[in-house]
Amino acid sequence: MTEKSETQESYVIGVDYGTLSGRAVVVRVSDGAELGSAVLEYPHAVMDTTLAATGKRLPPDWALQVPQDYVDVLKSAVPEAVKIAGIDPAAVIGIGTDFTACTMVPTLADGTPLNELPEYADRPHAYVKLWKHHAAQAQADRITELAASRGESWLPRYGGLISSEWEFAKGLQLLEEDPELYQKMDHWVEAADWIVWQLTGEYVRNACTAGYKGIYQDGQYPSRDYLALLNPDFADFVETKVEHRIGQLGDAAGRLSAQAAEWTGLREGIAVAVGNVDAHVAAPAARAVQPGQMVAIMGTSTCHVMNSDQLVEVPGMCGVVDGGIVAGLYGYEAGQSGVGDIFAWYVQNQVPSGYYEAAEEADLSIHQYLTSLIQDQPVGGHGLVALDWHSGNRSVLVDHELSGVVVGTTLTTRTEEVYRALFEATAFGTRVIVETFNASGVPVTEFIVAGGLQKNPFLMQTYSNILRMPISTIASDQGPALGSAIHAAVAAGAYADVRAAGEVMGKLHKNVFTPDEKAAEAYDRLFAEYRELHDYFGRGGNDVMHRLRQLKREALA
Amino acid sequence: MTEKSETQESYVIGVDYGTLSGRAVVVRVSDGAELGSAVLEYPHAVMDTTLAATGKRLPPDWALQVPQDYVDVLKSAVPEAVKIAGIDPAAVIGIGTDFTACTMVPTLADGTPLNELPEYADRPHAYVKLWKHHAAQAQADRITELAASRGESWLPRYGGLISSEWEFAKGLQLLEEDPELYQKMDHWVEAADWIVWQLTGEYVRNACTAGYKGIYQDGQYPSRDYLALLNPDFADFVETKVEHRIGQLGDAAGRLSAQAAEWTGLREGIAVAVGNVDAHVAAPAARAVQPGQMVAIMGTSTCHVMNSDQLVEVPGMCGVVDGGIVAGLYGYEAGQSGVGDIFAWYVQNQVPSGYYEAAEEADLSIHQYLTSLIQDQPVGGHGLVALDWHSGNRSVLVDHELSGVVVGTTLTTRTEEVYRALFEATAFGTRVIVETFNASGVPVTEFIVAGGLQKNPFLMQTYSNILRMPISTIASDQGPALGSAIHAAVAAGAYADVRAAGEVMGKLHKNVFTPDEKAAEAYDRLFAEYRELHDYFGRGGNDVMHRLRQLKREALA
Repeated sequence: MTEKSETQESYVIGVDYGTLSGRAVVVRVSDGAELGSAVLEYPHAVMDTTLAATGKRLPPDWALQVPQDYVDVLKSAVPEAVKIAGIDPAAVIGIGTDFTACTMVPTLADGTPLNELPEYADRPHAYVKLWKHHAAQAQADRITELAASRGESWLPRYGGLISSEWEFAKGLQLLEEDPELYQKMDHWVEAADWIVWQLTGEYVRNACTAGYKGIYQDGQYPSRDYLALLNPDFADFVETKVEHRIGQLGDAAGRLSAQAAEWTGLREGIAVAVGNVDAHVAAPAARAVQPGQMVAIMGTSTCHVMNSDQLVEVPGMCGVVDGGIVAGLYGYEAGQSGVGDIFAWYVQNQVPSGYYEAAEEADLSIHQYLTSLIQDQPVGGHGLVALDWHSGNRSVLVDHELSGVVVGTTLTTRTEEVYRALFEATAFGTRVIVETFNASGVPVTEFIVAGGLQKNPFLMQTYSNILRMPISTIASDQGPALGSAIHAAVAAGAYADVRAAGEVMGKLHKNVFTPDEKAAEAYDRLFAEYRELHDYFGRGGNDVMHRLRQLKREALA
Repeated sequence: MTEKSETQESYVIGVDYGTLSGRAVVVRVSDGAELGSAVLEYPHAVMDTTLAATGKRLPPDWALQVPQDYVDVLKSAVPEAVKIAGIDPAAVIGIGTDFTACTMVPTLADGTPLNELPEYADRPHAYVKLWKHHAAQAQADRITELAASRGESWLPRYGGLISSEWEFAKGLQLLEEDPELYQKMDHWVEAADWIVWQLTGEYVRNACTAGYKGIYQDGQYPSRDYLALLNPDFADFVETKVEHRIGQLGDAAGRLSAQAAEWTGLREGIAVAVGNVDAHVAAPAARAVQPGQMVAIMGTSTCHVMNSDQLVEVPGMCGVVDGGIVAGLYGYEAGQSGVGDIFAWYVQNQVPSGYYEAAEEADLSIHQYLTSLIQDQPVGGHGLVALDWHSGNRSVLVDHELSGVVVGTTLTTRTEEVYRALFEATAFGTRVIVETFNASGVPVTEFIVAGGLQKNPFLMQTYSNILRMPISTIASDQGPALGSAIHAAVAAGAYADVRAAGEVMGKLHKNVFTPDEKAAEAYDRLFAEYRELHDYFGRGGNDVMHRLRQLKREALA
C-alpha cells in the first residue's frame, strides 16, 4: 500500500445500480473529472414473467432480481473502470453507491439473501423485489386507508398515499403470501444498504430510503398498534425486520473490507459512503440542490427530486424527508414509474422489422430512427393522446394498478406516431407533477435532466415545449455515478459536505432547450386532453383499469 | 356462337368487388356449384395517404380508388375464372356484380370518370371516393342536424343519423371543396352501378344503394328545400347529379355489350343483373333471407343485413329499405367500418419481425401464428379492452371521427395480447349492434357469417362466446360472388326470384360454433367495460376523439 502525498491527485469511485445494469465511474476528487467507466449488465436482468431458477411463471406485476448480480458489478465494472481510467487503484480514497429504490432484499442476520439458501431458491418471495414489483397494490391500499382513517401523522409526508413499491407494502405482501419465509427473514434490507453491507461488512440503513421508502419520520416508524391492525403478525415488523442504525447521507458507513478490496482491487480500509438512491445522488452532481431546482433523473423510470426550505404536503408526491437529499433542507421526491421502460417495451413489442432494417441501414438506433421519422411532424399531427401508465402511476396518483392507454389510432396511424405519443405522454405526466408542486407552495423554478434519456434531444425539446420551461442537462453521461462519487469524496473527508463537493465536482449545462411558443400552445391543447383522461381513468371516473387487473388475476390464477 | 340445348348445363358469373380486389366466380345454375374463380388485386389498391398520379399527400381520412381497376377485373379475373372452371363461355347465361358501398364515381354524361380527363387527373376529388373515405364527417353532421331539426321523414329510416360514407355527405364535400369539378360532373354514380354501366352501356341505379346510401325512400329523395338549406348550390343535387332510372334487385339492368363481351370473353347479349352491394347479395347465398336471420359479411369491414316483416326504427342502423335485400321484406343494414382492416393495420404496423419469422418457420400466416399464441389464454388474461373504431364507427354511433383505443397495456403486455383484444373489440362492437336490434323490436334470432374472416375459427368462436349465440357460416369461400351469381341467374330468367334461386344455389353450415358458457360469463364482464368506454368516448362523455381529429387537421393543414 502506497502513502498518498499532498500533491498527488486522489480519486473516488461512484457505482450506480440501475434497473438492468451497474455502472462504475472513476472521478477525480479535485474537479470531478470522469476518467473512466465500465458497465455490467446484470446476468439475471429483471425476472418479470418467469423465475429463472424454476422456469415457472410469475404472477402479473412481479419484478424480481438476483442479489449476486450486484456483487458481480463490484467484481467486474469497478476494476475495469479503474483500468480504463489508467489510475493507480491505491489513489482511490473512497467509494460510494446508489441504487434503484425501493428495491428490497430479504436476508438472514448475516446479510445472506434468502434466495441463496438452496431450500428457498424455488420461492419467488426469497428474491429481491425490484422497485417496479407492483404486486403489492392491495397491501398498499390497506396501508393507506388504515393510516388515513387513524389520522397517522406520517401520511401527509407521503402526499397522502403509500406506494406498493415501498418497504411496508412489499413486506406485508411477503408476510401474507409466504409466511414461512417471512419468519425465516431476519432483515428486510434496501438493496442500497445491502450493497454497502457487502462492501463494509456492516449493516447501516441510509437516511434517504429509510425516510422515503421506510416511513421513517421525525425519528419514528409507524407504530406497533397501527401495524397490528394491518395484520396481527405484522405488529413487530419494524422491531424484527426493519429497525437498524441510520447513517446520514455523505457520511461513511464504514471501511472497505478485505473481501470487498479483493473483489474491487481497491485498498482495504478506504471510506465507503452511506447508501443512497440514484435520483437523490444526482442532485449535487447537477449542482442543483437549491430550493426550487427540480432534478429529473430520466431512465427506465423518472425520479424527480427537489429541495425546499418549506415543509408542505404535495398531494401524491413520493415523500418529503428532512435532509433527504442534502442536510439542512427538506428533500422532496416524486416519480413516474415508467418512462424509458415504456419506449423500450414499445420498440420490442410493437415495431415491425422494416423499421429495424432501415435504422440499421441509416446507422441509427431504433429509437433514433423512429425519432427521425416523426420529429418534424407538427404537434397534434398524429391525432393521438396516450397515458403513460404501463408501469402504473407513481406520482401523483400513486396507483400501480393503473395501466397504459392510447386513444386516437386510425388505419393510417403509423408506428412512429404512436411512439411519439408515448414520448409526449411521459412529458404530460411530468407536467402534472410540476403543476402539483407549484400549486402546493413549493414551486419548481428550474428543471434539470439527468439520466440516459437526456441524450435524446427531441425528447428534451418535447419536455421543454410541454413544460413551458427551459431544460438544463447535467454535463455528465453518468450523473448518478458522479453523484455517488461526490458522496464518496465527502465520506472520505475531502470536502466538508455534499453541497460543497457538488459545487466543485458537479456539472451542469444551463438551459440547453427552450420552449417553442407555437408548439407549446398546441401542446397545451393536447395536455388538456391528457388531464381529462388522467382524471377519468385515474381518479375514479372509470375504474376499468382496476377491474381489468382483477379479471386478469382471476383468469391467470 | 353455339346454340345451348335444353339438357346442357348453364352457368352464371358472379363478380364481387371488394376493397382491395375483384373476384369472379363461375357458378352452375342448377345447383350453385362453384366451378372456378379468379381474383385481381386492384393495381392502385386504396389511395389513403398519397394520390398516385401526383405523389401528393392526401388529407387525413381520405380513401380513393381508380375506376379503371374495376374494368381490369372484368378483363382479367372473369376470363381466367371461366378458363379455370373449364366450361364453355357460351354456356354462361348471365353475369351479376356486387360492390363495396357507398363507393362513388364522379362521371361525365357518358360515364367517363373525371379522373380520366387529363386536366383533372391531379385533383383528388376527381377520383372514386371509396366507402371508407371518412373526410365528409362535417357534411354528414350538418345533413343529420338539419334533417333532425326539420323532422325530415326519411331520417328515422337511417336510425336517426346519416353517415359520412354515403352519397349526400360525399357529394356535399365535393361541392364545397372542389366546386369547379362538381359543376363539371354530370352523374354522381355508385360504383355498383358504374360497373354495370360498363357491362351494358346503360346507367341504371340499383334499388339497394339508392335506398341505403342515396336516401331514396318511398319513391322520393330529400327535397330541394332541404338541400338548399345545406348549401344553396346543393339545391339541385338530386335533379342534376343523382336522380336516374331505378332497377330492382334480381332484374336485368340490360344485356352484355359488344365491348364488355370482348373484355370478358362471354357472349354478347347475355343478361347483366342490376348492381348490388356485397353484403346484401350474400344473404340469399347463405340461404338467410328469413326475418331474424342476420348475415354478417366479415372482411375488411363487416356489414350486417337482416330481413324483417316489421318496419321499425333501429337507432344507429345504416338503414331500412323496403325490398332492400329481397322483395317483400324490409331489409335492414348495419355495419362496422373496420374489422379485418384493423387486424391488417395491426400486423403491418405493430408486430415485430420475430413473429413473422416464427410464423414462417411454422408455415403459418402471421394471423394464424398470432392466433396460435393467444387462443388458449383464459378470457381476460391479457388485462386489456379495446375500442374497434380505427376506421370510425358505422353502427350504432355513425361517427367516423371516432378512433381506436387500447386500455390496459403494461410493460409485460405481449404483441399477441393486443391482437386478441382487437379481435374481441370487433365482437363487442357486433354485440352492441345485435342488442340494439333486439331492443328495437326486430330481434336477431340467428347469426350467420360470410366473408373471408369466417376462415378464422378462433375469431368465430370468440364471436359465439361474446354474442352468446351459435354461429353458422356460409358454405362458400366467396359468398358475395355466389350471391351475385344467384342474382345473375334470376336476371337471366333461370329462377322466378332471388329467394327461390337462393334456396337452390345458396349454401349454409348450421351452428358450426356454439358458445362456451364459462368464456361467455367472463366476456360479459369485459363487454360491460367495452360498453362503458363505448358510451364515454362515443356518446359525448368525452369528445376527445373529435378534438384530436380537429387538432390533426389543423396541424397538417
